[in-house]
Amino acid sequence: MKDSKIFEISSKKYKDAYLIVGLPGIGLIGKTVADHLIKELNAKKIADLYSPHFPHQVFMTGSGTLRAIKNEFYHAKAGKNDLIILTGDVQAITSPGQYEISGIIVEYCKKIGVKTLITLGGYSSGKLGDNKRVFALVTDKELIPKLKKLGIIFGKAKGSIVGAAGMLPIFGKLAGLKGICLLGETHGAYVDVASAKDLLIALSGYLKFKVDLKQMDKKAKEGEQMLKKIEEELKRTMIQTPEFSKQDVSYIR
Amino acid sequence: MKDSKIFEISSKKYKDAYLIVGLPGIGLIGKTVADHLIKELNAKKIADLYSPHFPHQVFMTGSGTLRAIKNEFYHAKAGKNDLIILTGDVQAITSPGQYEISGIIVEYCKKIGVKTLITLGGYSSGKLGDNKRVFALVTDKELIPKLKKLGIIFGKAKGSIVGAAGMLPIFGKLAGLKGICLLGETHGAYVDVASAKDLLIALSGYLKFKVDLKQMDKKAKEGEQMLKKIEEELKRTMIQTPEFSKQDVSYIR
Amino acid sequence: MKDSKIFEISSKKYKDAYLIVGLPGIGLIGKTVADHLIKELNAKKIADLYSPHFPHQVFMTGSGTLRAIKNEFYHAKAGKNDLIILTGDVQAITSPGQYEISGIIVEYCKKIGVKTLITLGGYSSGKLGDNKRVFALVTDKELIPKLKKLGIIFGKAKGSIVGAAGMLPIFGKLAGLKGICLLGETHGAYVDVASAKDLLIALSGYLKFKVDLKQMDKKAKEGEQMLKKIEEELKRTMIQTPEFSKQDVSYIR
Amino acid sequence: MKDSKIFEISSKKYKDAYLIVGLPGIGLIGKTVADHLIKELNAKKIADLYSPHFPHQVFMTGSGTLRAIKNEFYHAKAGKNDLIILTGDVQAITSPGQYEISGIIVEYCKKIGVKTLITLGGYSSGKLGDNKRVFALVTDKELIPKLKKLGIIFGKAKGSIVGAAGMLPIFGKLAGLKGICLLGETHGAYVDVASAKDLLIALSGYLKFKVDLKQMDKKAKEGEQMLKKIEEELKRTMIQTPEFSKQDVSYIR
Repeated sequence: MKDSKIFEISSKKYKDAYLIVGLPGIGLIGKTVADHLIKELNAKKIADLYSPHFPHQVFMTGSGTLRAIKNEFYHAKAGKNDLIILTGDVQAITSPGQYEISGIIVEYCKKIGVKTLITLGGYSSGKLGDNKRVFALVTDKELIPKLKKLGIIFGKAKGSIVGAAGMLPIFGKLAGLKGICLLGETHGAYVDVASAKDLLIALSGYLKFKVDLKQMDKKAKEGEQMLKKIEEELKRTMIQTPEFSKQDVSYIR
Repeated sequence: MKDSKIFEISSKKYKDAYLIVGLPGIGLIGKTVADHLIKELNAKKIADLYSPHFPHQVFMTGSGTLRAIKNEFYHAKAGKNDLIILTGDVQAITSPGQYEISGIIVEYCKKIGVKTLITLGGYSSGKLGDNKRVFALVTDKELIPKLKKLGIIFGKAKGSIVGAAGMLPIFGKLAGLKGICLLGETHGAYVDVASAKDLLIALSGYLKFKVDLKQMDKKAKEGEQMLKKIEEELKRTMIQTPEFSKQDVSYIR
Repeated sequence: MKDSKIFEISSKKYKDAYLIVGLPGIGLIGKTVADHLIKELNAKKIADLYSPHFPHQVFMTGSGTLRAIKNEFYHAKAGKNDLIILTGDVQAITSPGQYEISGIIVEYCKKIGVKTLITLGGYSSGKLGDNKRVFALVTDKELIPKLKKLGIIFGKAKGSIVGAAGMLPIFGKLAGLKGICLLGETHGAYVDVASAKDLLIALSGYLKFKVDLKQMDKKAKEGEQMLKKIEEELKRTMIQTPEFSKQDVSYIR
Repeated sequence: MKDSKIFEISSKKYKDAYLIVGLPGIGLIGKTVADHLIKELNAKKIADLYSPHFPHQVFMTGSGTLRAIKNEFYHAKAGKNDLIILTGDVQAITSPGQYEISGIIVEYCKKIGVKTLITLGGYSSGKLGDNKRVFALVTDKELIPKLKKLGIIFGKAKGSIVGAAGMLPIFGKLAGLKGICLLGETHGAYVDVASAKDLLIALSGYLKFKVDLKQMDKKAKEGEQMLKKIEEELKRTMIQTPEFSKQDVSYIR
């Protein structure tokens, strides 16, 4: 296998579907949302993506089977829309890998009838605490007003987005698709379920579908309690929280 | 040579043959079994595999000839079965290399009539001493009962398998072949002939063929005596045996 | 996207046009000249170049849109000549990347009617102060006399040129085009607008076109004042200016 | 340019020609012999080899022109034989690079009528002093007797040969050509003209041609005098000559 390849399980076509991308990244926010959607919307797997740019490893499962490292596409109906949800174990960690994989994902999207790509990720501000914002970046300015109405913030996220969350909308645009990148504000150094929940609320508001948040609430509460303890510990020991470096974020978690 | 390539010496086809893979890896267990099988079953070479993902070096032999770094396929009849034995000097050490080579190996397998891939490797538990286990992982659950009857353990090996021992069964499955990965428990930091012998007994039990173990017994005994000395030395100097890190295992020995 | 690709906006052909290459490099001299030319000559974009050898990142703009990392081709009429100006965010940082991209740039040049490639870069001599020289290197000796008349120096720049400034003239020559590399002498450790201005004067002298230098004068003066402060500081603290290493120059600024 | 490519200057075909390969490597022995042959036999350039696996740099010459980094093929008549001499600025430093380039060199050899590849290199024994040996390795045992008669030693050089000196005979054999690798014994840490001279004598003895050695004698004497000084210095300071590590040898000098 010299090239990344998508193995289709279903060959169904959709009309004006949305690709929702939640791959491992900052705060594991995108993947947390994608996993939640797949479970709560009872999504069905429609394709697997294998790539020579993923690690040359396989997982050993508890039942004694081998599980490949890959990305997966799922389909679910959410309100009136067809959602294609992309998630997986890893992202490619090199430029040639990201470019190659982004290319075949967009090609696949065009083939099955996706019209808009929505990538989900984290924006690490290095801050702890509540009142975290949801940022968006778009490929076409006409997409902004509807997102702004939902309280999503434009023009305040700065710098660059590394990996699929940024690359896929750009590749989509080159192929005539629309692209939105939703970023949940997060510290960056831990899995942030609370920020993932905010992102999911924004996404479901934008696409007008309902999704049960109970499981996410539960996990977010657990996470917050753990963080409070860490914060108190930090205050007591008078060590300031270090600014989290975006450069050091590992893609594979 | 831009792509890995298999140079066939024989073009014979087989029926429902088994590919037995013993390449360099943890404890050199897979390669030890493969080398023993080739010798004891008087296997004949049927193909060579060259790859730009192998080192750009050649060996100087004692007779003054040059020997390429490569992988080799051998054929032997073992009981009622045709075994294709794959061994070699190295494995590729990058993901693109492993993916490319796995792809052409599986393609070759399909062409010559292999139906099941059995990869052999080591599982480093960092423990010294006897009573080491043989683990198996499979691509299809229906393969488990027959292996369990031979005392092979399922669901206890944890983590991931790096390299060909894990990749080939996965690639085989994508091509419609069955895959079994047999792992001999080992410390990980030395060549473990005793564990290789256990693996060979499991393999020959599964495929119902006989193989002379005298040479392996002899080498295993030598290895055990050397290890006992090391253990005694360690006890005397009160230094605990360090936990062996799977991450640090070099592929090329 | 496995291969670098040029996306054409205009398909117009030119006659005996000049490609002016100002990509990021030593002293940011080439890019400074290219950016100035695009602005002052009111150049129009004619193509974008995307490459898997560029970073897998996208920029977030102040207006909330995503901007790809890429190279861009512009066209402007300068005096009697058609200039195609190539600039961008980055250069490829690997050999395979530079070779691939140089290849498609030269192919594109031939297609749209470019006959001469003029690359712009910096030559880091590690010296501060005025009276910096403009060096040139050419693919054909017959190009030398006309350049010498403009005070451009030959045979004094030593060593090798890393990246597009050196590679493109060589690739152009293999395709039957003429190539000139103009290098502005610079310290190497800072953005040198004064040296960029000297280069622009040499270029406009060679191609006989007029360009407003006011904006460049202003920026150069600001830069010089900042440098004077640094020099005075260095003298006071008695620390000698370190020789700037060409090896350490990062391509991406 | 995605692939390495040979640009032919002459399209002449030969009969049973010899390829003599002297690229940069241990002790610069191969390149020293090749450069001497090109000069003394008045060889004419017949082709250039460019590769994306060579550095993305170009040299600035004293006359103000740009010179690409490349490999070059020359032709000379030596006695009754046609010699094709391959030399150059660098070797590829990665496996994919060496495999790709070896492949196109052997293809070119077959096309122009080369029947035997003779690669020249150094064998670093870490020893100083005279009485250095010439070793040979071959692809076919039938080549040994004639070489042994010339005092060339077989079976004493140990380990592996990194790079073109080892790879080309192996690739040649896969294509049906004969291969000889001649290695001059050398310390490894300096340019060894004396060892290059021994290699040239062996080569000219094998192919029965005459070549003027005056220039080489002169350079070798200069080198020996410099080495004697170093040896005396080492003895005086009682520092033992360190064993030279083959691993650290840089390909590009």
